[in-house]
Amino acid sequence: VDLPLTLPEFEERAAGAIERGAFDYFAGGAGDEITLRDSVAAWQRLALRPRVLVDASRRSLEVTVLGRRRPHPLIVAPMAHQRLATPDGERATARAAVATQTPMCLATLASTGIDELAAAEPGLTRWFQVYVLRDRGATTALVEAAAAHGYEALVVTADVPVLGVRERDRRSRFETEEAQELPALRLLGREGRMIVGETASLFDPTVTWRDVERLASESPLPVLVKGILLAEDARRAVDHGAAGVVVSTHGGRQLDTVLASADALPPIVDEVGDEVDVLVDGGVRRGTDVLKGLALGARAVMVGRPVIWGLATGGAAGAQRVLELLLGELDNALALTGALHADGLDRSFVQHAPWANH
Amino acid sequence: VDLPLTLPEFEERAAGAIERGAFDYFAGGAGDEITLRDSVAAWQRLALRPRVLVDASRRSLEVTVLGRRRPHPLIVAPMAHQRLATPDGERATARAAVATQTPMCLATLASTGIDELAAAEPGLTRWFQVYVLRDRGATTALVEAAAAHGYEALVVTADVPVLGVRERDRRSRFETEEAQELPALRLLGREGRMIVGETASLFDPTVTWRDVERLASESPLPVLVKGILLAEDARRAVDHGAAGVVVSTHGGRQLDTVLASADALPPIVDEVGDEVDVLVDGGVRRGTDVLKGLALGARAVMVGRPVIWGLATGGAAGAQRVLELLLGELDNALALTGALHADGLDRSFVQHAPWANH
Amino acid sequence: VDLPLTLPEFEERAAGAIERGAFDYFAGGAGDEITLRDSVAAWQRLALRPRVLVDASRRSLEVTVLGRRRPHPLIVAPMAHQRLATPDGERATARAAVATQTPMCLATLASTGIDELAAAEPGLTRWFQVYVLRDRGATTALVEAAAAHGYEALVVTADVPVLGVRERDRRSRFETEEAQELPALRLLGREGRMIVGETASLFDPTVTWRDVERLASESPLPVLVKGILLAEDARRAVDHGAAGVVVSTHGGRQLDTVLASADALPPIVDEVGDEVDVLVDGGVRRGTDVLKGLALGARAVMVGRPVIWGLATGGAAGAQRVLELLLGELDNALALTGALHADGLDRSFVQHAPWANH
Amino acid sequence: VDLPLTLPEFEERAAGAIERGAFDYFAGGAGDEITLRDSVAAWQRLALRPRVLVDASRRSLEVTVLGRRRPHPLIVAPMAHQRLATPDGERATARAAVATQTPMCLATLASTGIDELAAAEPGLTRWFQVYVLRDRGATTALVEAAAAHGYEALVVTADVPVLGVRERDRRSRFETEEAQELPALRLLGREGRMIVGETASLFDPTVTWRDVERLASESPLPVLVKGILLAEDARRAVDHGAAGVVVSTHGGRQLDTVLASADALPPIVDEVGDEVDVLVDGGVRRGTDVLKGLALGARAVMVGRPVIWGLATGGAAGAQRVLELLLGELDNALALTGALHADGLDRSFVQHAPWANH
Repeated sequence: VDLPLTLPEFEERAAGAIERGAFDYFAGGAGDEITLRDSVAAWQRLALRPRVLVDASRRSLEVTVLGRRRPHPLIVAPMAHQRLATPDGERATARAAVATQTPMCLATLASTGIDELAAAEPGLTRWFQVYVLRDRGATTALVEAAAAHGYEALVVTADVPVLGVRERDRRSRFETEEAQELPALRLLGREGRMIVGETASLFDPTVTWRDVERLASESPLPVLVKGILLAEDARRAVDHGAAGVVVSTHGGRQLDTVLASADALPPIVDEVGDEVDVLVDGGVRRGTDVLKGLALGARAVMVGRPVIWGLATGGAAGAQRVLELLLGELDNALALTGALHADGLDRSFVQHAPWANH
Repeated sequence: VDLPLTLPEFEERAAGAIERGAFDYFAGGAGDEITLRDSVAAWQRLALRPRVLVDASRRSLEVTVLGRRRPHPLIVAPMAHQRLATPDGERATARAAVATQTPMCLATLASTGIDELAAAEPGLTRWFQVYVLRDRGATTALVEAAAAHGYEALVVTADVPVLGVRERDRRSRFETEEAQELPALRLLGREGRMIVGETASLFDPTVTWRDVERLASESPLPVLVKGILLAEDARRAVDHGAAGVVVSTHGGRQLDTVLASADALPPIVDEVGDEVDVLVDGGVRRGTDVLKGLALGARAVMVGRPVIWGLATGGAAGAQRVLELLLGELDNALALTGALHADGLDRSFVQHAPWANH
Repeated sequence: VDLPLTLPEFEERAAGAIERGAFDYFAGGAGDEITLRDSVAAWQRLALRPRVLVDASRRSLEVTVLGRRRPHPLIVAPMAHQRLATPDGERATARAAVATQTPMCLATLASTGIDELAAAEPGLTRWFQVYVLRDRGATTALVEAAAAHGYEALVVTADVPVLGVRERDRRSRFETEEAQELPALRLLGREGRMIVGETASLFDPTVTWRDVERLASESPLPVLVKGILLAEDARRAVDHGAAGVVVSTHGGRQLDTVLASADALPPIVDEVGDEVDVLVDGGVRRGTDVLKGLALGARAVMVGRPVIWGLATGGAAGAQRVLELLLGELDNALALTGALHADGLDRSFVQHAPWANH
Repeated sequence: VDLPLTLPEFEERAAGAIERGAFDYFAGGAGDEITLRDSVAAWQRLALRPRVLVDASRRSLEVTVLGRRRPHPLIVAPMAHQRLATPDGERATARAAVATQTPMCLATLASTGIDELAAAEPGLTRWFQVYVLRDRGATTALVEAAAAHGYEALVVTADVPVLGVRERDRRSRFETEEAQELPALRLLGREGRMIVGETASLFDPTVTWRDVERLASESPLPVLVKGILLAEDARRAVDHGAAGVVVSTHGGRQLDTVLASADALPPIVDEVGDEVDVLVDGGVRRGTDVLKGLALGARAVMVGRPVIWGLATGGAAGAQRVLELLLGELDNALALTGALHADGLDRSFVQHAPWANH
């Protein structure tokens, strides 16, 4: 296949490769999409401060996440309905993840089952994203299934008590017209298909920190709370047993005009970074963005939409290329900043960019 | 009817639905329209700081305005000549307001009479906007008529001693060519029609704070002073008997390059917010804007042009949809910020947006 | 004539009304024209802080300039070669100035003679702009002629030791091809015509503060130094006998990327505003700009290019309309800011505009 | 020849004059080219503070660089493969440099040999840019050849341990398809041609400050370290024997989102400017940019791409015109700022530009 050279090109190609409603479902954000756009821009408001002549041959991308040494800091973010991007959906993503030694976080609303993914790609380091559902028994069933099938962490989504205002989906009527495969539904004793716009009705809006605490105490897996933007919420996560937090705006899909992850990250690292792992998610399009996230104190960086654009453009091979481009650029940036080691970064490598006031 | 999904679309549709001169009359601002544009942008320069996992099922839009509990913080702003937007003008607006439990402020220059509106929509919570006219007897007559017909508050416009420089109207010759229905004129013993461009000649440029004081002492209704942008003027309003102030740029129609309402609001709340109700008006296009106004200390938020675009696009049903969109988004934002209660907001939910320096 | 309603429209119309080279000569600036553009933008970076309910019927545009009471703060800036804009050049400008009671500053490089202008418009309040020429005797002759013909002030241009880098002129070859009427040359004993691009050769690059001192001591007229952008130079002007300074970038025509006048003004007022008159020149396109200049401490405001666009569009009547538009808008802004009196403004009426960081 | 009047026009003309791949090779930068664009913009974020009436006839462009008096502060930056811009490549550049008394820094990857250039233009003040190669013997041979042929300084490139991510080159396949003349290779005992994309394989990624120290101690020539962006690295350069540093982003071609040279310069001057010569390179397009660099403390200013655009547009004559334009503008700016002497500038002549926040 003739794959693109940059992530923006992957997005452009994806727009032509899958149907408009599906593209908009993945690409769209809440409201005026201010946070969606700013998620990318916020990384660009950070300037790098490179050191030279430090023997760039000795570099390493390795990091430690949840106590385990990983070959690099990328993780595939949880994303629903990946069959909308490529016929075999999450299984294609998993092949790309295995090929690049990237952990992958399966979504509750995945179009591939917990067991199915584990069976298809046993070599995959897999995490599971869980919504606290109205049906708490089903929630427990999901969590137990994840543990039983070798998933290594639970990522609890905290920022969807109700669904955001997503006008692209309203406009495309995409949400309302076609049922998608949702194997997780079977654990709820329901048929395994659902209209996208109705899936949010499964989620429990009464969910609170006690639910996090219960999950953390009941499951053998470490629990990360995803969707944290304030230091005080990060503190609450730690107080309720979380092993980590994922600083995230839910891809700018939930509440418009919230801070971009890159801006929300530093105070959260200051608050809990010494106690638990802080991860960051949103707007990463370059290896330099990954490096900046690490420099601000993140232990790992989740990548979402670019993987979808990879899938849509070239299936598993496309997703793999996306991850390889990011890893190649990160390696290049570790050499050219003189940081050399992904786990050796700190804030001295970044500063507010002078061009960001222009 | 097939109504738009967002307020900007309503505006776009309205531009094609009514004659250009009328559209420009409503849409236009003073001078280079810098304040007009910035009124919208200023809300977007505020970022939200959302809290998660707080039981979002328990939310409420209720607020207290002028001592009364209201189901939500929206109020239809006073706007002249609404028959230019839809055949039955203010009566259509009133139906939308009743349907959404929104108070409506009738304008002195309305194309519907004080009595007429009260008779048509007795269930409407109605306020009256009053200009201090050269004919003080007529001013008194207007105020007495409002009280007699069950209007609950007087909104005294403070920022039109002379009319602003509005070039769209000069260009369209809209101001000078066609008389509009003005029932309030009959209380002045004049024929009930007038050329738009001449109406400002009714207003008294010598009006001062003493006039506010007189109105406040003579009328049984609470008096709000509208058009305040400085804390010292808000203090004067309180000192002269006002029950509240409306922070407003008159829709950017009076003096260009004045501060947008969102920027003028906080010091005014700091000065008088503990003593009287501070309302805000201008540039609100999203539920998140309403939430930000409340977070900065406003008790209620007036909405103007979007209601006109609703009227022009779909009459009463269009205006109702506009108000419902805003209320739906506000509800969504209360859930997703974790604020939950419209009267429980404070400045910890907002901050200067990092993207606003870009 | 059907004249435009705004100054930007006058410019647009002028571009079509006179030949391109002449238009570019007037419109162009130095280098990348950053200062040229910013001269307009800098006024827009100031927000107004309006006070309401102050009896707006009692307003006045009067100011005191060089010890004389003037009906308003506008002055026509010195500009060369006005016959390029309209056939009778400066005489048309003078008629507009007389009609609006505006002082006019005749340029050394005017296409109308010192005596000729005085004879044509005896009712004109006239000032004379003088370059210190290589021929000091001729300089003295110019200054004496101005005094003899009732000019009331000398404006010494300080910012043209050499000509700026003006690419529009180089490109149009306008500077090099056609001689222009220059009656002042006759006082140098030369023929009264010269190629525009060669006129700078008349100026003396060795001119220093001593020359200002000599002019100020030898001439009965008050001397203003024009082209000051730094407080320390304003101090030097005062120390060398100037009666005032004109904060100016020479219309952005001399050195690109210097501070716009609106930004350079405040520290100069702080330094010498209590001792001499500080005037400002550059980028004024609105009555609100004039008001902001006064609020920052200027005693009067020079207007240049807009007058040329008025001339090019409609001769004397066009120039008059330009001045009337500015005066009308200033009057409107005095009412709507509540400042009321042009000589009653101070910095409390302006602040840095929040939108200027956007 | 009919040569352009400004540097941007030279670039535009060059784009049409040479093949696209070659143009992109010279024009392109790393990643999203944020630093590439900001290198130009950063100079424009500085405003000039001009002093008037200082006798502008006495100006001088002379500066002292590496202890020698030079007629002006420009130096032709080292750039590879100049035959891609004009048939006789570096020899044409050298003729332009001689004609304008500009030192020229020959690149290791030049398409003209060290000896060849010296023989062709003995009157040229020549420097040599050296990469520390994997083959240290060859590195020594290059350095010795430079000394033997009268080169006066060594410029060691510090910011290419690996090649940056340059997508234009990947896209054009320019890097991979055609071998270029590389006479320096013969000193490595290799054929004197190489594919552009493979040249980086010659560089040693293990290079450290010890290599700088060795070069500085072994070579009779003063050593400047090029590619420094941090004050602590400038300090290290001094500590390891450098006679100066060149603040540079490698033309924005190595690591995207690093600080532009204009922003990186001041802290480096503060750190080492009293001890060694600090030069600056990147984004210079105007004489005012050169002046700003000197005002911030640089001793000399390297000019790269504009010289290439000159070559591509008009060969040696084009490059000469480019240098003359910059020198003419610098002279003009020295007059109009009142600085007068290129070696008399300091930071009082510049300030952060108010428009840069807009």
